[in-house]
Amino acid sequence: MDKSVGIVSAQCAWFDTPLTFRSGAVLPRYELVYETYGTLNAQGSNAILICHALSGNHHVAGYYAGDEKNLGWWDNMVGPGKPINTDKFFVVGLNNLGGCHGSTGPASIDPLTGQPYGASFPVITVQDWVESQARLADLLGIKKFAAVIGGSLGGMQALQWSLAYPERVAHVLAIASAPRLTAQNIAFNDVARNAILTDPDFHGGNYYQHGVVPTRGLRLARMLGHITYLSDDVMADKFGRALRTDQLNYGYEVEFQIESYLRYQGDKFAARFDANTYLLMTKALDYFDPAHDFGGDMNKAFSRAQADFLVISFTTDWRFSPQRSREIVQPLLHNRRNVSYAEIDSAHGHDSFLMDEPQYMDVMRAYLDNVAKECAR
Amino acid sequence: MDKSVGIVSAQCAWFDTPLTFRSGAVLPRYELVYETYGTLNAQGSNAILICHALSGNHHVAGYYAGDEKNLGWWDNMVGPGKPINTDKFFVVGLNNLGGCHGSTGPASIDPLTGQPYGASFPVITVQDWVESQARLADLLGIKKFAAVIGGSLGGMQALQWSLAYPERVAHVLAIASAPRLTAQNIAFNDVARNAILTDPDFHGGNYYQHGVVPTRGLRLARMLGHITYLSDDVMADKFGRALRTDQLNYGYEVEFQIESYLRYQGDKFAARFDANTYLLMTKALDYFDPAHDFGGDMNKAFSRAQADFLVISFTTDWRFSPQRSREIVQPLLHNRRNVSYAEIDSAHGHDSFLMDEPQYMDVMRAYLDNVAKECAR
Repeated sequence: MDKSVGIVSAQCAWFDTPLTFRSGAVLPRYELVYETYGTLNAQGSNAILICHALSGNHHVAGYYAGDEKNLGWWDNMVGPGKPINTDKFFVVGLNNLGGCHGSTGPASIDPLTGQPYGASFPVITVQDWVESQARLADLLGIKKFAAVIGGSLGGMQALQWSLAYPERVAHVLAIASAPRLTAQNIAFNDVARNAILTDPDFHGGNYYQHGVVPTRGLRLARMLGHITYLSDDVMADKFGRALRTDQLNYGYEVEFQIESYLRYQGDKFAARFDANTYLLMTKALDYFDPAHDFGGDMNKAFSRAQADFLVISFTTDWRFSPQRSREIVQPLLHNRRNVSYAEIDSAHGHDSFLMDEPQYMDVMRAYLDNVAKECAR
Repeated sequence: MDKSVGIVSAQCAWFDTPLTFRSGAVLPRYELVYETYGTLNAQGSNAILICHALSGNHHVAGYYAGDEKNLGWWDNMVGPGKPINTDKFFVVGLNNLGGCHGSTGPASIDPLTGQPYGASFPVITVQDWVESQARLADLLGIKKFAAVIGGSLGGMQALQWSLAYPERVAHVLAIASAPRLTAQNIAFNDVARNAILTDPDFHGGNYYQHGVVPTRGLRLARMLGHITYLSDDVMADKFGRALRTDQLNYGYEVEFQIESYLRYQGDKFAARFDANTYLLMTKALDYFDPAHDFGGDMNKAFSRAQADFLVISFTTDWRFSPQRSREIVQPLLHNRRNVSYAEIDSAHGHDSFLMDEPQYMDVMRAYLDNVAKECAR
C-alpha cells in the first residue's frame, strides 16, 4: 500500500453544447482537461470527483512519463491503498473551466475573435463549475458519484454538487472549507485582485496581446495568500524573527527569513500561473453563497441536499476556521442529513488539508473505506 | 469637562547636532514638528509625550484656526478633563523623524544635494526616534516625563523610552502593542512594502523628481493594513456580505460593501501619505526588538527599566493580540516592575486604541489621575 498511481496522462474532453453561466454569459464551446485513476466498476458506482482549490488543477496524483518529480498535488491522499484508494475507486480530477492548465480559460483562443479571451472570459461561479463537471461526468458515463471531494474552494464545489445534483452524489467531503466567505475573506481577495488589476502590465486583462504579464500584481497576490494559508504559530516556529544573514542590513532587501520565503513563493507562482485565472478563482470564492437565493437562510438552502457529509476543519486554520465548517454542519443537521464532523488538531493552518496529518488521513481513510463498501454492494 | 483643547498650532524645532542612526547612517541636521497642550508646571514634572503609530503625526488634539473639522487623531483621549488631562498635564505630540507631516523625512530637501532625500533617507528605528524625542525634550526643558504613551508602534516607542532613558520616564503606557513583531506581522509588512517597491512609479524611492507618486502600491499597502486593523467580527457586523447595489454584477468593479470601504480607505490614504515614510514606518516596526542585543532574552532586555507600566490590550485585536501584550508584561514582572495590565473587551480589533471604549477610557483616566497626583506632590 501507499504506492503512487504511477505514470498518468491528461485527457481532454470537448463540449460543443453552449454553457450559460450564472452571470448570463454564454460559452459556446469549451474543453476540459482531466485525469482519471483506477477503474470504473461495471455498475459505474465507484467514481469520485476531486475538485481543486484556487491554484490547483487536474494533476491530482501520479506523475507524467519522464517527469517523476512533478507529483500530483494530492498524491499523498490519492493512490493505491491511500485514503482515496484507487484500488477501489475510479478517481476523476479536472482543471476547472477558467483555469490555466489546459481547460478553456482566459488565455485560450476565443474562436470568435482569434485572440485570447482575456478580459472577455466571463466571471465564473462555483455553480458554473459544477455544471461543467456534470457534463464531464455524463461523458465519462458516471450517473452518480460515490463521493465528491474538495478542500477550500474545492469544498465549496463539493457542497454545490449536493445542491445542484442531489441525486448524483452519495457523499460530499468538504475539507477546510466554508459555506460562504466572510467580509474579511472578501477583503483579502479584493486586495489580491487590486494588486493584479492595477498592475500596469495587466492592460485591462488583455496582456497576452501586449507580450507582457502582470507579474508584480500576481506575485503580491500570492504573497498575501500565503500569509493566510499558514498559521501564525507555524510561521513563528518555522521562521520566527530569524535573519537571512547574520546581521541587520537596514535596507529593503530581504532581512528576515520569512520575507525570503514569501518572495520566493510569490515569484514561483507568478511564473507559472495566469493572472486572469487568479482573478476568476477569487471571484468564484466571493460569489459562492448557497443561501443567496434563499434570503440568506442557509437552512433553506441545504434543504435540497440528499448526500451524506464528512466535514473536516483544522484548529489553526484562520482563513476558513473551524467555525466556518460548523456553519456547514449546522444547516445539514437542521435538514437531518448524516453528517460526520472532524476538527483536526494541526499546526499548519489552512494548508493542513494538503498535509500528511495522521489524524486527518485516518478520518479520510475510515470514511472512504465505508464508502467503498457501499459501492461494492 | 470633555472639552477640546481648542485651537492649536504646530511648532518647529531645529536640531544642528548630527544624529547617528542605529544603522550607522548620520543625519547632520533635522527638524521636528510638534504640538503642545496644557502648561508645564514649575518643577517640569507634568509632561507627557504621545508617540504616534504608523500613520499618525503631531496633531494629537484640538484643531487649527479656520479648520475646526481637522481634529487631532487622539482628540477623544487628550484634552481638558479627558483621560490625558491637559488641565493637569503638559502634553507633547510630535511628528516622528522620517515622517511626512513636517518633520524631516524622505520628501524633505537634503541640503547636501538640493534634492529630496528619497531613497537616501536612512532606515530609521524606534531607538533613533526615542533619541530624537529626547533631544526635543531637552529643548522643551523636560528632564523627565511623567509618562510616555503610545498605541501600536507608538507603544514600542514608549517601551523603548524605559530602556534608553530609564531615569527620564516615570510611567510608560503601552497600548495595543507588542515587544517585537512575529513572523506573520513581518510578512504583512513585507507584502505592503513590496506593493510600493514594485510600483513602477516608485523609481527606487526617488519618485519626487519624476513628478509621480507610487499611488497604486501605497493604496494596496493601506488596504491590506486596514484588514489587519479591524477584527473579523466587526467587519462581519459592519459589512458582512452586503452588496453595493441590489444585484450581483459579475465583474471586477466593487461588488460588496467591504470592497468599497477598503478601496476608499486606500485611495484616501494614498492621496495624503508619503510612500517612503510608509516604508520607513514598517521597517521600524520590523526591527524593534529590545531582546536583539540580549541573545533574544526579553527578561534581560527589560532589566534596565525603572518606570511603572500600564499595558493595555483589546480582545479582538489580532494584529497585536492580548498575547503580545502579555509578552510585555511578563519580563516586566520578572524584573519586579510595577505593572498594571488591562485586557479590554472590545469588538474593534487593533483600531480599538483609537476608540471611545468606556472601559478603556476609564482605565486610562484612573491610571493617569494617579500619575497627576504624583506630579503635584
